[in-house]
Amino acid sequence: MGKQALRTAAKVDLEKPAAEQDCLHNRWHPDIPSFATIKNNEVVQIECVDWSQIKNDDSADDMKNVDLTKKILISEKVHYLTGPFEIETAEPGDVLLVEIQDVQPFPDQPWGFTGVFDKNNGGGFLDEIYPKAAKAIWDFEGIFCSSRHIPGVRFAGLIHPGILGCAPSAEVLAEWNRREGELISANTLDRVVALPPLPQNVHAGTASDDIKEKVGKEGARTIPGRPEHGGNCDIKNLSRGSKVFLPVHVKGAKFSVGDLHFSQGDGEISFCGAIEMAGVITIKFTVMKEGMKQLGMKSPIYIPGPVEPQFGPGRHIYFEGFSVDHNGRQHYMDTTIAYRETSLRCIEYLKRYGYDDYQIYLLLSCAPVQGHVAGIVDIPNACTTMGLPMDIFDFDISPHTPAQKRDMGSCAFASDD
Amino acid sequence: MGKQALRTAAKVDLEKPAAEQDCLHNRWHPDIPSFATIKNNEVVQIECVDWSQIKNDDSADDMKNVDLTKKILISEKVHYLTGPFEIETAEPGDVLLVEIQDVQPFPDQPWGFTGVFDKNNGGGFLDEIYPKAAKAIWDFEGIFCSSRHIPGVRFAGLIHPGILGCAPSAEVLAEWNRREGELISANTLDRVVALPPLPQNVHAGTASDDIKEKVGKEGARTIPGRPEHGGNCDIKNLSRGSKVFLPVHVKGAKFSVGDLHFSQGDGEISFCGAIEMAGVITIKFTVMKEGMKQLGMKSPIYIPGPVEPQFGPGRHIYFEGFSVDHNGRQHYMDTTIAYRETSLRCIEYLKRYGYDDYQIYLLLSCAPVQGHVAGIVDIPNACTTMGLPMDIFDFDISPHTPAQKRDMGSCAFASDD
Amino acid sequence: MGKQALRTAAKVDLEKPAAEQDCLHNRWHPDIPSFATIKNNEVVQIECVDWSQIKNDDSADDMKNVDLTKKILISEKVHYLTGPFEIETAEPGDVLLVEIQDVQPFPDQPWGFTGVFDKNNGGGFLDEIYPKAAKAIWDFEGIFCSSRHIPGVRFAGLIHPGILGCAPSAEVLAEWNRREGELISANTLDRVVALPPLPQNVHAGTASDDIKEKVGKEGARTIPGRPEHGGNCDIKNLSRGSKVFLPVHVKGAKFSVGDLHFSQGDGEISFCGAIEMAGVITIKFTVMKEGMKQLGMKSPIYIPGPVEPQFGPGRHIYFEGFSVDHNGRQHYMDTTIAYRETSLRCIEYLKRYGYDDYQIYLLLSCAPVQGHVAGIVDIPNACTTMGLPMDIFDFDISPHTPAQKRDMGSCAFASDD
Amino acid sequence: MGKQALRTAAKVDLEKPAAEQDCLHNRWHPDIPSFATIKNNEVVQIECVDWSQIKNDDSADDMKNVDLTKKILISEKVHYLTGPFEIETAEPGDVLLVEIQDVQPFPDQPWGFTGVFDKNNGGGFLDEIYPKAAKAIWDFEGIFCSSRHIPGVRFAGLIHPGILGCAPSAEVLAEWNRREGELISANTLDRVVALPPLPQNVHAGTASDDIKEKVGKEGARTIPGRPEHGGNCDIKNLSRGSKVFLPVHVKGAKFSVGDLHFSQGDGEISFCGAIEMAGVITIKFTVMKEGMKQLGMKSPIYIPGPVEPQFGPGRHIYFEGFSVDHNGRQHYMDTTIAYRETSLRCIEYLKRYGYDDYQIYLLLSCAPVQGHVAGIVDIPNACTTMGLPMDIFDFDISPHTPAQKRDMGSCAFASDD
Repeated sequence: MGKQALRTAAKVDLEKPAAEQDCLHNRWHPDIPSFATIKNNEVVQIECVDWSQIKNDDSADDMKNVDLTKKILISEKVHYLTGPFEIETAEPGDVLLVEIQDVQPFPDQPWGFTGVFDKNNGGGFLDEIYPKAAKAIWDFEGIFCSSRHIPGVRFAGLIHPGILGCAPSAEVLAEWNRREGELISANTLDRVVALPPLPQNVHAGTASDDIKEKVGKEGARTIPGRPEHGGNCDIKNLSRGSKVFLPVHVKGAKFSVGDLHFSQGDGEISFCGAIEMAGVITIKFTVMKEGMKQLGMKSPIYIPGPVEPQFGPGRHIYFEGFSVDHNGRQHYMDTTIAYRETSLRCIEYLKRYGYDDYQIYLLLSCAPVQGHVAGIVDIPNACTTMGLPMDIFDFDISPHTPAQKRDMGSCAFASDD
Repeated sequence: MGKQALRTAAKVDLEKPAAEQDCLHNRWHPDIPSFATIKNNEVVQIECVDWSQIKNDDSADDMKNVDLTKKILISEKVHYLTGPFEIETAEPGDVLLVEIQDVQPFPDQPWGFTGVFDKNNGGGFLDEIYPKAAKAIWDFEGIFCSSRHIPGVRFAGLIHPGILGCAPSAEVLAEWNRREGELISANTLDRVVALPPLPQNVHAGTASDDIKEKVGKEGARTIPGRPEHGGNCDIKNLSRGSKVFLPVHVKGAKFSVGDLHFSQGDGEISFCGAIEMAGVITIKFTVMKEGMKQLGMKSPIYIPGPVEPQFGPGRHIYFEGFSVDHNGRQHYMDTTIAYRETSLRCIEYLKRYGYDDYQIYLLLSCAPVQGHVAGIVDIPNACTTMGLPMDIFDFDISPHTPAQKRDMGSCAFASDD
Repeated sequence: MGKQALRTAAKVDLEKPAAEQDCLHNRWHPDIPSFATIKNNEVVQIECVDWSQIKNDDSADDMKNVDLTKKILISEKVHYLTGPFEIETAEPGDVLLVEIQDVQPFPDQPWGFTGVFDKNNGGGFLDEIYPKAAKAIWDFEGIFCSSRHIPGVRFAGLIHPGILGCAPSAEVLAEWNRREGELISANTLDRVVALPPLPQNVHAGTASDDIKEKVGKEGARTIPGRPEHGGNCDIKNLSRGSKVFLPVHVKGAKFSVGDLHFSQGDGEISFCGAIEMAGVITIKFTVMKEGMKQLGMKSPIYIPGPVEPQFGPGRHIYFEGFSVDHNGRQHYMDTTIAYRETSLRCIEYLKRYGYDDYQIYLLLSCAPVQGHVAGIVDIPNACTTMGLPMDIFDFDISPHTPAQKRDMGSCAFASDD
Repeated sequence: MGKQALRTAAKVDLEKPAAEQDCLHNRWHPDIPSFATIKNNEVVQIECVDWSQIKNDDSADDMKNVDLTKKILISEKVHYLTGPFEIETAEPGDVLLVEIQDVQPFPDQPWGFTGVFDKNNGGGFLDEIYPKAAKAIWDFEGIFCSSRHIPGVRFAGLIHPGILGCAPSAEVLAEWNRREGELISANTLDRVVALPPLPQNVHAGTASDDIKEKVGKEGARTIPGRPEHGGNCDIKNLSRGSKVFLPVHVKGAKFSVGDLHFSQGDGEISFCGAIEMAGVITIKFTVMKEGMKQLGMKSPIYIPGPVEPQFGPGRHIYFEGFSVDHNGRQHYMDTTIAYRETSLRCIEYLKRYGYDDYQIYLLLSCAPVQGHVAGIVDIPNACTTMGLPMDIFDFDISPHTPAQKRDMGSCAFASDD
């Protein structure tokens, strides 16, 4: 009863390649063996790695050429997740209640990064306008962060895991592969629309070679969140104190977690847009027997915690965007386009203070901006809004105060080819 | 100095047809004459009508056959706006700061309605699943509302105008007609995608017959919000205390307002989904000279007021949806589909308490649900969330408490043909 | 069902003396006849008067000489309450649940006042330091107020009734008279410490002369709140949406309400410190049978509503005060002294902007300042704090920004004798 | 720049007596030597001890006989503070801005305690009613805590330092001794009213014997907060993200900090009422030159951080108390008595669920209850309120739901003599 430190269910070694650590894996597959067992109602700490290979320096060459040493593209990129954990008594049809008691960076590594990928190697939400690779390093000072690459800004992180979920069953996994395969087959866009299973660089934890090969052939990639289990949902509010209710598809649940974010804005628009970090998450696990049926649940639900940063509604500037793109083309009820325009309106506003577009693109990805679906029925225009908290700036950005251009330095860019 | 009541800049007569009232109009056009003049920095009250012809009864026949007497379809439907008002000193390029000091229903008409249109006459966000016409009547008791058609629910209204904006210039109007016309021309969907100018049922305030005819031919319809001026943006948070910064396109601004809502949820998903009401809005007008350039503004921005209902983050249940539709089809980063799925997840959850799908569809349209763009970069799945405040229910809807089916009565439906 | 306006249970006439209106009274006594009957679960509107005789002008002579025409002192002053109302089915031992659905000023009288009494005629919390009479007139613009006497400030009112409660039983009334009488008898201070029953200027509603005489002899004065029923508790958060649970001591409850405030700060320090106004309160009444026993209740409890102005914790400056007075004298755990010092610290801070002490004294009385009991056990020093919301000022009062003295005009003062 | 862990300016050894550690001291005195130097604008971590000798067990004998082994009474008790720290460039008249970036318990000691002292050895706010010693042990799970001694309760800690301040100058110290000495001399109460300097058990850090003797004779005790520097102000909201502005009285400021609390309620009513813990505080220090004059500052001010737990106003039950004591005696405007009565009202309410009085007394001391000064001018009754957040309970304590008595076990009590 609290007389000693909480149990750590999995420890990572940041000096060692992720692919060589038994407690990590980088695909969703029911056959990846459980790394450890956690009791029902137990509270444990779980350590997580970050997207490795990004350096605390002032060049974005590492963003441009992610995994350069391995000659792989971002489209082959993976998250290394910690787990899977067998939760005692969990059975398919149950719900696993995951209470996030805390998330912390490692004390000896108090920094993280936000990045924009090159349009030709990953891209992002605004890559047609901002095609270059860029990054910002964030320093953590307790619950706050600031960046030498984006001066004038400082905020408390809404710290959370980008990815958490239970393993899919074989049936669920087959469904994922079917429907994403159909999208890939039917694709006529000049861009990657989904990522099929990929045998290269698979890490399946402690799996035998046979299983590992199977995981390579069938295993779901970690990039998208998926309705049946959540996964990489990238919800900025799954922070300290949140309760997440996850569907269980296999015996023991096989829960995994990773991709810790010190902070993120709604949308995580630059793709690698949260403040990525390594660290420790503290979770209480509780099994709700037959919970899926009782809750009528097809996708995860969650209840946020009580300690979200609160600025007051009147301390946000809200920008509006509609489904008319910046080339003047009218789209029909396209909320994605509306949100893109909303982001651009915010960028235009902040440029007046001397920030570069890329600095703001990075900032909106990781600061706690509120992205709302405002009106979604007034044909042909979907309307979305983005709320920017004024109090993360150390100068006054209110529309009532005349803007003055300042020397805002620069974020880190990649060198030209 | 406050020794007498505020000036009412326009009074409406709820007993008289809207089309016969000088202070109303139902198109956006620069040539509609100003009805009255308001000084810079003046605070005035402005009266607004509602979507007429909907009765406080228990049948949704009126929703099904909107404007039946006039034999027009909902696609011909209009909002009657109050105005236009000439704001002294306002010039194109200025910004009009609209401070919403209060919004109130008329004291002798303390009720409003939320409706679902028939799929063949208006439709809504979920019309493929819920094609029938339905409605709920809401009774107002001070700042709260409740409905005999959706028992067990009661909440404080986030009362606001659905529509506000300044008149377009001739150039802006031409641009609207160009781009919406192109969408209509290119349409291959089996549904109306946008509404072109319509000469029938035009009301242009005090315009001469010539002007009225011109307004009919060119005037923009009131249904969509548009980036250049806002208009029908349907933002639920433009409530008491909000400051809205509007671009000015014509001399005198020609500000109009209408479509008052007692409450609305993010998205206003059932189309006629807010609690529609007639009432009075109190506004302070301030002209910011050359504000558009100074603020780098292309679309309106706003700052919410300080009195939004606050439930605490931990008193919301958040539902997650992804761009995989309920037929199992994978879409590429489609936020609109993700939000539709999110809505369905919430409906499934609430049905367990005995509510009918249509009751919940109506409720999610008008209660203060929070619709967030969560992740918009994890190909192929956009992720959105909808936060449902638990405290609007008079019973416990927490996932920790077993759900019991109750007799929840029924919303109003249309009679069969 | 909402098809017509809510019933008004009592109407006042602001042109007529309060003492001549049947729906008003100015003492607490069980024998004052009920003015009207309200059903259990009914929602009604009730009109209230303000402290009359204060004018919307720029002199505080009326504050200095309250009730001058009647040659009475402030120590003889009364509140005129609306009621009593008989609530059907209420019996002693029940709890009356009072849900405050709304509070509004009368539309044609959109102003109120805050006053400081002369030290020799009423006084206030800081009267030893600020002995003069003063006042500020506040203009209402929707939910906001501002004052020509305290420039640079504007805020949304946390509008509420200062006084509400059910009539005491004969036993409860006797207890009040006993204990307050003992305090008066034992008084050695050079000031009035409590107000005994006073036969002059009694108004007992529709009571017969006999009853009126009895009420004059025994009736409790309206100034203090009292634990058994609440009364003049002056709680700033009893605003829109609050639920108050009141003990019932007599058959029918005999509920009364009055002393409406547009806004008040914690403590209401200048005595007449809230923004006093006339207006309408909308209440839903519900009887909880045997509620006192079930709730273990000796004094009222309440639950605030969801629409309090929210500025965010980081938008308040908190001042600290301890039980060491400004003359350097140490007191033992005296929270009243600590709060007085806290108020003075805030006054000193705000004076740097050019405000006069009396302007700030008035402001802290009526703006939504948060007064907290911080530490009450660290002998000999009680510690209290006062949180001042920065966003009620239209200039930056943050300690990070250098203060500039401005011309802040003046509040209204009384003329010298 | 964040590439390695933050510097720790002082490390404590929990295995070693506090009196033997150079970085600690237990009096306020200008001559205690600085333990270490911190740069202006530097962020450092500082370790703090707790009130030692309290064990994680189920007996309160240790509370009853605090410092038993040393045969000292609680009236001789001290806090061991970490420091003093010399802040470079700070001079008398400056203000030291202390930004609390984080506060954390030590990871290997995730528990704390709340205690009630015996009336004859320390006492507390309610000791006349609750004279016995008692305690509750709290287990920390991330940001949450729960106690086997007070079941059914769990909450996020509003973690903060109870004590922080800069050293007094010789003049300030002399003033403290004068005025507290006068209070002691004049005391006629049958209780200790203040604590004079005490030569026994003095720890003056690295001071020479001469200095140590002087500190023993003159040094101010750590129990009370004091207006000139703050000290033991026990403000529950000085949590993560707060900015505290402290007057500087000596060269180098000589800042000290200690008495970390995992959580506390307004008032800290049981005296040892916060959840006391050892741990680490992360602070950024900034010197504001001549800040005292510029801010018109006599006592510290602070601005809370943005991450306070937020339950929403409507999730609190507020209890009211007046300056009439539980023996029926009327006091004149005594806020301390009003707050005592308010506490009792809350205890009576919670007893209905099966809690023992002492369990609730402990709970109200450490849970984030809101203690407000409501009305402080309505003679003779001061009115205070206490807001109890409903969501810290894992069952429904709303007044709308009938209370059921449960088996709530017991807190730890001392054995009888």
